[in-house]
Order: sequence, then C-alpha cells, then structure tokens
Amino acid sequence: DYSFVSLLHSLLPLLPQVNARWLIHGAKVGLALVLVSLLYMLEVVHDRLGDNSMWAVMTVVVVFEFTAGATIGKGINRGIGTTLGGGLGSLVALLAQEIGGIGKPMVIGISVFIFCGMATYSRMIPSFKKKYDYGALIFILTFSLIAVTGIRGDQILKIASDRLSSICMGFAICIVIGLFIFPIWAGDELHNSLASKFDKLACSIEECLEDNIKPLDEKKGTQLANPHSSCIAVLSTKSSDETLANFAKWEPWHGRFGFYYPWNKYLQIGELLRELAAYILSLRGCLRSKQQPLKSCAMMDIGDYYKATCVLLASTLRELGHNIYDMKRSQQRDSILAKFEMTRSELCSTVLVSKLANLMNRSGSMGGGISSTSILFLLLEITDKIEE
Amino acid sequence: DYSFVSLLHSLLPLLPQVNARWLIHGAKVGLALVLVSLLYMLEVVHDRLGDNSMWAVMTVVVVFEFTAGATIGKGINRGIGTTLGGGLGSLVALLAQEIGGIGKPMVIGISVFIFCGMATYSRMIPSFKKKYDYGALIFILTFSLIAVTGIRGDQILKIASDRLSSICMGFAICIVIGLFIFPIWAGDELHNSLASKFDKLACSIEECLEDNIKPLDEKKGTQLANPHSSCIAVLSTKSSDETLANFAKWEPWHGRFGFYYPWNKYLQIGELLRELAAYILSLRGCLRSKQQPLKSCAMMDIGDYYKATCVLLASTLRELGHNIYDMKRSQQRDSILAKFEMTRSELCSTVLVSKLANLMNRSGSMGGGISSTSILFLLLEITDKIEE
Repeated sequence: DYSFVSLLHSLLPLLPQVNARWLIHGAKVGLALVLVSLLYMLEVVHDRLGDNSMWAVMTVVVVFEFTAGATIGKGINRGIGTTLGGGLGSLVALLAQEIGGIGKPMVIGISVFIFCGMATYSRMIPSFKKKYDYGALIFILTFSLIAVTGIRGDQILKIASDRLSSICMGFAICIVIGLFIFPIWAGDELHNSLASKFDKLACSIEECLEDNIKPLDEKKGTQLANPHSSCIAVLSTKSSDETLANFAKWEPWHGRFGFYYPWNKYLQIGELLRELAAYILSLRGCLRSKQQPLKSCAMMDIGDYYKATCVLLASTLRELGHNIYDMKRSQQRDSILAKFEMTRSELCSTVLVSKLANLMNRSGSMGGGISSTSILFLLLEITDKIEE
Repeated sequence: DYSFVSLLHSLLPLLPQVNARWLIHGAKVGLALVLVSLLYMLEVVHDRLGDNSMWAVMTVVVVFEFTAGATIGKGINRGIGTTLGGGLGSLVALLAQEIGGIGKPMVIGISVFIFCGMATYSRMIPSFKKKYDYGALIFILTFSLIAVTGIRGDQILKIASDRLSSICMGFAICIVIGLFIFPIWAGDELHNSLASKFDKLACSIEECLEDNIKPLDEKKGTQLANPHSSCIAVLSTKSSDETLANFAKWEPWHGRFGFYYPWNKYLQIGELLRELAAYILSLRGCLRSKQQPLKSCAMMDIGDYYKATCVLLASTLRELGHNIYDMKRSQQRDSILAKFEMTRSELCSTVLVSKLANLMNRSGSMGGGISSTSILFLLLEITDKIEE
C-alpha cells in the first residue's frame, strides 16, 4: 500500500493545476468515509444494525457534495425519500403478506408499477425536479427495495428502521465534516460569481476599446485568439447560477449572510448582466462588421466620446462588482448617475448634430452603448436595493 | 390497493398537463422495476445471488434515464466503476486480511482515504466530470463498500462478483426496455431542439416587427406580457445542449442517425444561434430605447427596408429550421444568398445616401440587422456542411 501512496504522490504534480479547494473537498470526503468505516467496525454498531450499516457508507458517498447547501439539500431529500418510501413500502409488504398466496407478488408488482411510475413522472415536472428530484429517486429506490424484500418478508419494519437510522448516521457525519471543516458555502460561491461577472463584462468592454485602436491586421489576430470569450462565459451562466441559488436556499445562517438572503435578487441581477453581455456581444459584432466603421473619416471627433463612454462603463461595472463583493453601498451613487446622464445627453447631441449617415455601424455601436447605459441604470437601482 | 388505483386515477386530471412522453417514461420505469422484482422472486436467482440481487433493483432505479443515450452512458459508467472499485476494493481487503491485527483497519482506513479522496478530486475536473462523473461516484461507492466489508471479511470475491452480475442483470433490463419500447433518443431531442431554436428566433424577429407597428401604449402592455422570452430561452440552452450531445454520443446507430453523426457541428450551430439571439435581443433593446426611433420623421422610407429585412430574416430562419428538421439540403440556397446580398447592399446604400443622423438608434438596429445577416451567412455555410 505504501508503494501506492508514493506512486500517487509522484502523479500529483502531473495534474494540470492542483486546485486547493478541490483537494480539500477530496480530503473531506475521504475523512468522512474513514469515519463511517470506523463506525462499521465498532462492534456495538454492527451488532445493532448488521449489514444495514452499509447504508451509512452509501449515504456519505452519495450525499457529500462540493457545497454545504447541496449536501444539506440532498441529505434532507434523502431522509424524506427514505421515510416516505420505507413507510409506504412496509405498508404494501405487510398488506401483501396478509393476502398471501398468488396475490402476494401481484399486489407487490402492481403497487411497484404504480407508485414508481408516478414518482418517475413527477421527477420530469421541472418545478418539482428543481428541488426534490433526488428525494423522488430515493423514494423509488427505498419503496421498491422494501416492497420487494417483503416477498421473502420477515422483519420488514426492523429493516426499514435500521436502514433509516444508518442513513441518519451517515448524514450526521456529512453535516459535521461538511459544515465545520473548511466549509464551502453555495451562497458565497453565488456571491463571488456574481461579483466576478461584473469584472468580466468590464474586461470585455475594455477589449472592445483595444480592438478599436489596433489596426485591422492585428485585429484579425486577436479575433482568433480571444473570441470575446468572457462575454460568452457570462451568457451561459444561467443554469449554474440557478443551481447555486437553489443550494444556497438550503444553507443555514453563516458569516455575512442571513437566513433570508435575497437569492432571487441575485438571479435577477444575473439576468440583467446576461442581457448586458448580449448587448456587448452585438456591439463587438457591429464594430467588426465589414463596413469597417472605424476607417471612416469622421471618426476622430466621435471616437473620443465613444472611448469615454466605454471607459466610464467599464469602471462603473468594476466598481459595482467590488461593492457587491464587499457588500457595501456605493458612496458615489449620485455622482455616477449624474455622469451617466451627462454622457448620455452628450452622445445624443453629438450624433444629432453631426451628420453621420455613413457611420451607420458606428452609431449602431453607440446605440448599443446607450442601451447599456439604460441597463446600467436598472442595475444601479437594483444594487441599491440589495446593499441595504 | 384498488382504492389507491382509483384515487390516483382521480388525481391524474388534476396534474397541470399530462405530458404523454413523460407518462410513457414513467410506465417504462415501472415496468422495468416490476421485471426486476420478478427476477428477485425467482428461486433460482435468489439462491444464486442472495441479497445481492438487491443491486439489480438499485441499478434499474438509478440508471434508467429519460433518453436512451443517458441510460447507456450511465450503465457503462456504472459497470466500469463497479469493476474497478470492486477489483481494487477486493485487493485492499485481501491485503488487510493478510496483515491482520491492528494493521487491518489501518490499511483499510488509509486506502479508503487516499483512493476516495483522489476519485472525488478527479470528479471536480470539468473534462473528466463531463463523461465519467457517475462512474467515479460508483467507483467510490463500490470500493469503500467492498473494502469495509473486508473488515468482517469472508468471501469478498464472491460478494464482488455477485454484485457485479446482479448489476449486469439490472442494466440488461434497462437496455431492453429503454431501447425497444418507445425509445427516446437524445440525438433526436438535440436535433429537434436545434430546429425549434430557428423557429423561436424567427418568432422573436417577427415580434420585433409587430412591436414596431403598434403604438407606444400597446407596446408597453406587450413588453410586460412577453419579455422577449423566446430569445432569452435560446440564450440559456448551452448547458442542456451539451448534456444532450454528451448522451447522444453514447447512442448506437438508429433511425436517421449514423454512428458518427456530427454532434459537435450541432453544438457549433447552437453557439451561432445563441450569438444571433444576443443580436436580436440588443436590436429590441435599441428599438425600445428612450429615443423612440420610430417616432422620427424619416421613418417611412427606411421602415420599409427594415420590415423587408426582418421578414426575409425570419423566413430564412424558418426555412433553415425546417431543412434541418427534415435533414434536407436547401434547394434555394443560391437564391437566398443572392437575396441577402441584395438586401444588404440596399440597406447600406439607403443609409449612406440619406442623412439619418437623428435616426441613430434606428440605424443601430440596422447595424444589428446587418450583423445578423453576416451571422446568417455563416449559418448557411455550416448548414450545408451538415446536410451533406
């Protein structure tokens, strides 16, 4: 075995980049499993529960998730599913034993078909699936196992209760290790991912600006190297955000977060940021289109406004991100809003006064800029709500 | 029991809308579970496998997924995970028995910690997680169960092989029922979802057009009722598409699809459609911005061009969608391309000639239209590649 250890040790540096948090998570799972195995080794536990203590091991393996919220959610789902499934299964098994004879397998077969079919159907319904998918799975599992065991049936109730108590033991170990040793909170994850989204969008706005300044040849190079990836990344965060928010709702009070933290507000802000990402994406598309807006003659006088807007947008996004990260209320809120109002009217008037018909695409991007501005207004308001 | 059936029957109409495919899936799962229970009831199977046949039930519950590809993928993962975990676990258990005494729990504890920690760590690596997440979970489960059983250890090898063979039985039942009774293929799902995306985008372009025609008051009403939901829906399909493509890769040849069907092309087209959705979204944003582009004086002469473009875009998207759905090659490809070229140059020239400085936002949307056009060019090319 020690040769294995050294082998693994020599393999470790070969992994692309050892992520410390993942490593901690791995160690936590390992620790939980060792603890649960020790439990299995204790004579007193094994005498009481027998082979049903296997279920404690299984619970640890299946329930222990990366974030604390996911672990708690799965554990509670598992508990409810086991209780319901075990209860119904015991009932069916007892009923089947009462009937006896050929009716016994019939009753069990029919009830397995109906209950498991129903539960599977309900797992497909999105709103149910979101929170109780795992519970329904466990319900099906426990129900069919208990009901089927009832065929050979003795001590059904003892089996069911032993199983439930070993699951509770496994869950308790998960909770202790998951919540007290380097806990990873889904709420924190969501919070940080939201704050980093602001940063990503600010970066991609700045990239737009840089692209503009460079000549055409270089531009093509960067286009291949960096296909506005941060924008796309922000666009596709919807499902992971929702999962995190779901988990976060299971989490107890901790650190900076209260019980009733507005996770739905987080999702709304995420939605707005995705919309903003869509605008930035199309702004870049306009800038890169074949009309080559930046080659046009009247560029210089408008270009400055454009740059100023971009810089303002990027810095505001950065600041909003930092404020959200630190959970502070923005000090200069009014001044920022005033700046935006000014920039906006400047943009409008410039474009209205100068005759920029040949700068169509150019002003197209301006339109995008203005839409971004109005989105930012919304953002500012919502941020205020949250940071109260 | 019959009272239960009638109760459930009376409950069924209360469900929001009974989805026939979900219902079939539920019935299939129920059927598979009944079959596996029957297996458990057969004396010959029970004598051979004992309580290990429980694992066949468990396999059916956990492996049976909505699409055929997901079922196969999970089953293969489960098989590999069980074999590896069982093999390693047996080795560790035998080694521990050799050593004996106090060394026995030590060896088992240390190896459980190391192997399970490693496997948990590898589950966090995205590229590994994508295909083998479930296999790693099963590896951890089987390994720790077998190794821990080794503490009380007798007949470890028999337990491991019995468990494996009952898992194979469960998997066989899943395959037979999943693939031969109303199969639902992940490939078909992906195909249809891609085709419907074209339709959704066409709808949202048409909505843009309708919004335009209506006066301001009505517009606000529809804005609330229909917050460009189809665009947003398309934007957030990335992860579900990737999951489906992942499953589709597991599926054997069936129907219209071959073994080496270009699922990656599907993902690429999906990516382009999402980008297009971003453009449409920002086009709507421009149209709805406070400058009220449509109130401006010069609207009429440009409005026609704009409408023509929208109609052309929408109809082309529809046709592309239908072509992809039917897997036909577009007949009028050249004529469509020519039409686009024409519309494009018309758009450019109109805007270049007329002095539309005050129509900034308006032309903003035009810019969006042109970008959409160039995206469509790309789309047309890729579609051709696929439909070969």
